[in-house]
Amino acid sequence: MTAAATRSEHDLLGDRDVPADAYWGVHTLRATENFPITGTPISAYPHLVDALAAVKEAAARANEELGLLAPEKAAAIIEACREIREGKLHDQFVVDVIQGGAGTSTNMNANEVIANRALELLGHAKGQYAHLHPNEDVNLGQSTNDVYPTAVKIATVFAVHGLLKAMAVLQDSFARKAVEFREVLKMGRTQLQDAVPMTLGQEFSAFAVMIDEDRSRLDEAVELIHEINLGATAIGTGLNAPAGYAESARRHLAEITGLPLVTAANLVEATQDCGAFVQMSGVLKRIAVKLSKSCNDLRLLSSGPRAGLNEINLPPVQAGSSIMPGKVNPVIPEVVNQVAFEVIGNDVTITMAAEAGQLQLNAFEPIILHSLSESLTHLRAACLTLAERCVDGITANTDQLRASVENSIGLVTALNPHIGYTAATDIAKEALATGRGVAELVQEKGLLPAERLRELLRPEVLAGSGAQPA
Amino acid sequence: MTAAATRSEHDLLGDRDVPADAYWGVHTLRATENFPITGTPISAYPHLVDALAAVKEAAARANEELGLLAPEKAAAIIEACREIREGKLHDQFVVDVIQGGAGTSTNMNANEVIANRALELLGHAKGQYAHLHPNEDVNLGQSTNDVYPTAVKIATVFAVHGLLKAMAVLQDSFARKAVEFREVLKMGRTQLQDAVPMTLGQEFSAFAVMIDEDRSRLDEAVELIHEINLGATAIGTGLNAPAGYAESARRHLAEITGLPLVTAANLVEATQDCGAFVQMSGVLKRIAVKLSKSCNDLRLLSSGPRAGLNEINLPPVQAGSSIMPGKVNPVIPEVVNQVAFEVIGNDVTITMAAEAGQLQLNAFEPIILHSLSESLTHLRAACLTLAERCVDGITANTDQLRASVENSIGLVTALNPHIGYTAATDIAKEALATGRGVAELVQEKGLLPAERLRELLRPEVLAGSGAQPA
Amino acid sequence: MTAAATRSEHDLLGDRDVPADAYWGVHTLRATENFPITGTPISAYPHLVDALAAVKEAAARANEELGLLAPEKAAAIIEACREIREGKLHDQFVVDVIQGGAGTSTNMNANEVIANRALELLGHAKGQYAHLHPNEDVNLGQSTNDVYPTAVKIATVFAVHGLLKAMAVLQDSFARKAVEFREVLKMGRTQLQDAVPMTLGQEFSAFAVMIDEDRSRLDEAVELIHEINLGATAIGTGLNAPAGYAESARRHLAEITGLPLVTAANLVEATQDCGAFVQMSGVLKRIAVKLSKSCNDLRLLSSGPRAGLNEINLPPVQAGSSIMPGKVNPVIPEVVNQVAFEVIGNDVTITMAAEAGQLQLNAFEPIILHSLSESLTHLRAACLTLAERCVDGITANTDQLRASVENSIGLVTALNPHIGYTAATDIAKEALATGRGVAELVQEKGLLPAERLRELLRPEVLAGSGAQPA
Amino acid sequence: MTAAATRSEHDLLGDRDVPADAYWGVHTLRATENFPITGTPISAYPHLVDALAAVKEAAARANEELGLLAPEKAAAIIEACREIREGKLHDQFVVDVIQGGAGTSTNMNANEVIANRALELLGHAKGQYAHLHPNEDVNLGQSTNDVYPTAVKIATVFAVHGLLKAMAVLQDSFARKAVEFREVLKMGRTQLQDAVPMTLGQEFSAFAVMIDEDRSRLDEAVELIHEINLGATAIGTGLNAPAGYAESARRHLAEITGLPLVTAANLVEATQDCGAFVQMSGVLKRIAVKLSKSCNDLRLLSSGPRAGLNEINLPPVQAGSSIMPGKVNPVIPEVVNQVAFEVIGNDVTITMAAEAGQLQLNAFEPIILHSLSESLTHLRAACLTLAERCVDGITANTDQLRASVENSIGLVTALNPHIGYTAATDIAKEALATGRGVAELVQEKGLLPAERLRELLRPEVLAGSGAQPA
Repeated sequence: MTAAATRSEHDLLGDRDVPADAYWGVHTLRATENFPITGTPISAYPHLVDALAAVKEAAARANEELGLLAPEKAAAIIEACREIREGKLHDQFVVDVIQGGAGTSTNMNANEVIANRALELLGHAKGQYAHLHPNEDVNLGQSTNDVYPTAVKIATVFAVHGLLKAMAVLQDSFARKAVEFREVLKMGRTQLQDAVPMTLGQEFSAFAVMIDEDRSRLDEAVELIHEINLGATAIGTGLNAPAGYAESARRHLAEITGLPLVTAANLVEATQDCGAFVQMSGVLKRIAVKLSKSCNDLRLLSSGPRAGLNEINLPPVQAGSSIMPGKVNPVIPEVVNQVAFEVIGNDVTITMAAEAGQLQLNAFEPIILHSLSESLTHLRAACLTLAERCVDGITANTDQLRASVENSIGLVTALNPHIGYTAATDIAKEALATGRGVAELVQEKGLLPAERLRELLRPEVLAGSGAQPA
Repeated sequence: MTAAATRSEHDLLGDRDVPADAYWGVHTLRATENFPITGTPISAYPHLVDALAAVKEAAARANEELGLLAPEKAAAIIEACREIREGKLHDQFVVDVIQGGAGTSTNMNANEVIANRALELLGHAKGQYAHLHPNEDVNLGQSTNDVYPTAVKIATVFAVHGLLKAMAVLQDSFARKAVEFREVLKMGRTQLQDAVPMTLGQEFSAFAVMIDEDRSRLDEAVELIHEINLGATAIGTGLNAPAGYAESARRHLAEITGLPLVTAANLVEATQDCGAFVQMSGVLKRIAVKLSKSCNDLRLLSSGPRAGLNEINLPPVQAGSSIMPGKVNPVIPEVVNQVAFEVIGNDVTITMAAEAGQLQLNAFEPIILHSLSESLTHLRAACLTLAERCVDGITANTDQLRASVENSIGLVTALNPHIGYTAATDIAKEALATGRGVAELVQEKGLLPAERLRELLRPEVLAGSGAQPA
Repeated sequence: MTAAATRSEHDLLGDRDVPADAYWGVHTLRATENFPITGTPISAYPHLVDALAAVKEAAARANEELGLLAPEKAAAIIEACREIREGKLHDQFVVDVIQGGAGTSTNMNANEVIANRALELLGHAKGQYAHLHPNEDVNLGQSTNDVYPTAVKIATVFAVHGLLKAMAVLQDSFARKAVEFREVLKMGRTQLQDAVPMTLGQEFSAFAVMIDEDRSRLDEAVELIHEINLGATAIGTGLNAPAGYAESARRHLAEITGLPLVTAANLVEATQDCGAFVQMSGVLKRIAVKLSKSCNDLRLLSSGPRAGLNEINLPPVQAGSSIMPGKVNPVIPEVVNQVAFEVIGNDVTITMAAEAGQLQLNAFEPIILHSLSESLTHLRAACLTLAERCVDGITANTDQLRASVENSIGLVTALNPHIGYTAATDIAKEALATGRGVAELVQEKGLLPAERLRELLRPEVLAGSGAQPA
Repeated sequence: MTAAATRSEHDLLGDRDVPADAYWGVHTLRATENFPITGTPISAYPHLVDALAAVKEAAARANEELGLLAPEKAAAIIEACREIREGKLHDQFVVDVIQGGAGTSTNMNANEVIANRALELLGHAKGQYAHLHPNEDVNLGQSTNDVYPTAVKIATVFAVHGLLKAMAVLQDSFARKAVEFREVLKMGRTQLQDAVPMTLGQEFSAFAVMIDEDRSRLDEAVELIHEINLGATAIGTGLNAPAGYAESARRHLAEITGLPLVTAANLVEATQDCGAFVQMSGVLKRIAVKLSKSCNDLRLLSSGPRAGLNEINLPPVQAGSSIMPGKVNPVIPEVVNQVAFEVIGNDVTITMAAEAGQLQLNAFEPIILHSLSESLTHLRAACLTLAERCVDGITANTDQLRASVENSIGLVTALNPHIGYTAATDIAKEALATGRGVAELVQEKGLLPAERLRELLRPEVLAGSGAQPA
């Protein structure tokens, strides 16, 4: 590398050479050296990079509007931000996603990239900060402590939108099966023991309804994420952000992102608070719990083919075994289970990070961002994969299911109101011991007339109307 | 014990003697033998016992209304339930709180106690189930699988009301301090490093606002708990519950409890779903995180008295040490921290229990009830204790706080817009190295006129208006 | 209550009346007022109360030996401690188990009870501390910060012994079944899909081996708990504990408890460290994971009776349903699952409490004690209950199990080495599609001679010798 | 792409084209389509890829030794494996790290890559499996269910070695500081309140000892990881692995890896068990707890510079704020805290995955691998970063520390044995109220002669010898 390949930059700690073609500068350089933790740069979180650019553009617009930033500087900054939001320069966002300092290095990285691109647009060389400065111009009226959480929130909102869509796809998938299977009779089970009849449609309808409810919870949780603290600056007192700035910046940011953002009523509280992230993660955990439960059920119902329940068939998507020929495994539900476990673990990480905040700031937001992004994107992938590679292709073993109902001891439950719990218990015991059928025994003992018995034990009646396909 | 001191009862497994004066019967007896786990009977959860009685009364009313239960039987059952809700017979609820079987033993215990008390009211001896039967009459049209979750939800709602009130007390306590300290200037801190000035009132206001927001979240979460599945019977298909029963039972239960209960739209889903409990626990975890963070701050701010921050004084409530005379420790915040850790652990327990549900039922609701009750009642006690034994008596070391502001390097931040980030950095470095003051150095270097500098550095200005006491 | 019914005591905060007959004093009184959290007094942890008495006796002996405590005082203290260890005065240990202050209130409670009982033994009235003082005599050379962790460790060791015995009982129970079922052929399953043959004895042997390994881990973890910090006093520097005290106290304590206690090499580290508790809880979590997995398997294998796997029968221990006559549920494994979830949650609580320690002490040991005790005693109860009320009575449905092997497609795996994975895959596919048997198809296609085929597919050969009953 | 650019492969589900130059085949292709979850291929885990190659080489050697595999096939397979272990072909390991199916896709990916490379070495085109087959030759005598866990264990052992080295570096770093600061007197603190004197050397020594103990725990835990189940095949019965295979394969694998591997005594148990991973993760959690506690302390001790404890100075590694000039933050400890939170969350994920295993296999090992690898590599990076970028450069504010001791009320503790706890309490109260010194007050009240007092309060005496630098 020749001498011309670097430029010198200066900070609190002294001078450092940075690559001449790098849009990032000395602060970013030090951060990459300080945080060699995951090897994953923030560019792997495109929603976050875009959100940072949106925040910086909003701030520049507000600063120009308030007469704090010269129009030509503002224009250059805004243009640089737009390029980023168009997908350019993402490779310049190089700091590690897990970093000390409440996101300072991420914010500095953004300030430097935007400043250097803006300098180019203004006809200057990179690093000529006398013309336009990362901190004094790009970061004008801002602090990491309001920029970073605001950007994380916007990135989170967009990721949530992606998850909501994927959940809707999965819900539809389950709901279509609920309709398809609406007349397939089967035994319901409680505590893994034969209980009373139901339809397979009711079972799939429950899966669909669970997701529907979870979508509602996610809708509620994401609403809280729209509350931002832009204008709070360092600790929420708004130092260095002039009157009108917070409102102007919010207005521009809402326009840029298309999101109904609101400024928190108490900025000191908002700047130290991670409650909205904890709430969001809690809801993601709830979704994970339900998804995992549903996948456990799918795996159980499709167990076999011969020494299992064998009620439904998952579509085969790959050979299941390197040693057992012909074996096909429920690999799609299994991968969803694993994502669920990951999301539940991430919730603990986020909880600890939130609890560890001290005084006017939570320094641990980077791990919150990382864990939350992972949970959101993996859940999204899991929902789509489950819908498209599994649920859509599920078929039912209708005859076997109906036979299990007719053969069932659980039918006796329906006779409770007619022969009493005590007599019914005796019938059940005898059926179990002898292998005989419930109806046969009731009739033999003359407990009910044949006709009445037939009517009471009609499976379609037994399956009831407690639940209709969604 | 003489022979007369027992009565014989019969169940699926055979005959057993139970104490003659016990209101509980053979099912309860077996359960106490089967679950010797915690030693804590369900009577330790009075909200749950009352809720069970409320559900049983509602069911009896509905059954009478529908002509399924003779009026005199209904009257006796209803009277027995009311006695329980008046606090009688609680000692008869003896099964262990952690039990197998989705709450069956709890429901059976309730059925037996109510049946035997009703028998007495009807002039029969205990155990004469031919006259009024625990399963056939008290449990008529019901299953553990709708009774137990419904009772757990009602118990939870009442416990949440208790917590909400305690949170309001704590919020008021913080808010009063916020007003009291509104003019106490101090240094704000981010990442434990001196940042920029604020008031102690703003700091306490943030504590108050956090609780206020958490109360809103709790209000939302408890709303979901009002959705019940009474009428679902075994698996949600409503088998053995006649048309009109679910609605009638709900109406009566709402009247008895005074709660705006609603019946779930899809009873199959509702019977297997623990989502509302997961959501509730997630919100309790959020509250725990915030409370713990606030207590960490109180402990930090009151550290010292001489080798600590020593900004505030917590009221001494007991001698702090068995060896160090005169030492007073922040024991109240410390106990609140511990409750928070417990609540966060309980959330993991509840999460795992919810995830482990299979097919048409979650068999693990007893541990959910136990963990949720513990979280709710301990958090309530923690909030009240924190308010009354700590926050109400906090005083501020006003002079020391003000001195720390005047002595601070962080003041230089306010000069950014006037001398630039780069020049300000140099001033800060020099101040730190020499121990001199920021204002002095700025003036010495002629960076700003004295008058202007004085105006810019007025701490009252610096503390800003970002947050007002709640 | 008449005036005579109280005595006045004095502390840092002033004077307070305590009941005349109470052995506890003013410090305990204040603690009961300060920590109204759980309602569970430390007397509910008899191991802890006994351990406290053991520590106090050891300290008194050491102090006498070193000439710091008059023999008559020492004798009275030692006698009081012995009475406590014989089970007396436990009701005087009244402070709440969850308390602020690193166990100070527990230590103070012990000091006061012992002092007042010792005063009586010396012929003085309770409260006459001029003759023998809770802090100056009973607590001589001690601090809560060495007494409490030492007592918690001793209590933990005794609770671990109880758990180890219960695990041995459960292991034996599984191992006996492994022998009983050693010739019962069945299909093994991976990912809930039919795999290859094995014996039911192998399956139960695996349960036994899991427990055996967990016992080894627990043995290792409890060894770390024998390291104590007695003699460290306040922060590990041993201030106020004279030369020779730590060693003397350890020696006496080892003799009193019969445990091979060792003094930590670095007392400053030992006084702030909760690593041994985290390790212990981690091992309990491991045990919980394995137990829960085993119980999941038992519930799965016993599912049915008609619409499930129905491979084994758990002994019925109670009627399973208030609505479904004759239903019997796997309530014992279910209650064990719930204990496992609780233990896993407790591990998170303990983890957070350990992480929250600051500087020279961890103030959150009370919640660690509480959670650890709960995990240990509930796991012990769970193991015994599982052994005695479930595993011991399990029977196998031998014929059905053997039929599932003969009917299995998984047999084809054994032909891999003879006909190749590709041909075997085709056979498996055809068997599944047509419902025909593997042997039949192989023969029809002439892939192997009949005799050879019969030999290769002998189930006894297939089950192999990979595992023998433990 | 022209037609020549692909080759056709066949599996259970039919024919598929794969890129002609891909070493992976149809099974890998389907897996990449089935698991689009994280976007992170297993090639990102080089230890795992190398371990897979080592296992496959060991199996080939054993198969050759037993006469099951022709020497020329064995030679080609072995050569292919060695190339992989030399770092070649890693880019061919393309399946997603989070995948359904207990690692089947990872094993299939390895089988295919090795087979195709071996085919090339034998002079055949890729895909000509008639000459050498991924399942029939490379996977001969193996199952995913023994290959994958064995490979994961070997990869884990190597990652643990890396962590152990990094911990040793950090321990040394702390120990050097302990020596450097051995005479720096300071106040010790319990519950954040001033306690009694100690040296800063003792404080850093405790950090060093903590790590030393954790290294011992890690040494113990990794020993368990050396137990493998190679030879178990599908479910531990060893089906299709001839007598002698397990032992031979183990011997070759030990030789190839240089690790003292042992074969599990009970292969059925070993094949379904994840206990060693749970144990390992539990120890990593313990390490995380301690590291996080130490970093919390470092951040606390370096708080300030003016409104904090300001006892030590962390080396500045980057500018701390985008708005507050001159601010330097403890970013290195902060990033370590975040890694700790991640590790603790991962432990919950691993716990849930382990608990979810069913019957003869745990299908969720891929997420265990992923979480464990992340914990190990991030902890390693965190330890090195903490040592090199923080601890090594820490300096002490010696004068301020000593002044805090001389000014302290905690000195009074040392007078307990001489003036009694009660009198000492009165002195402490007066000192606090008046701001006067302890010695001054004791002397004024004539409680001790001046000379004696001076002797008793010599800080060097007070700091004691409870702990020496490690």
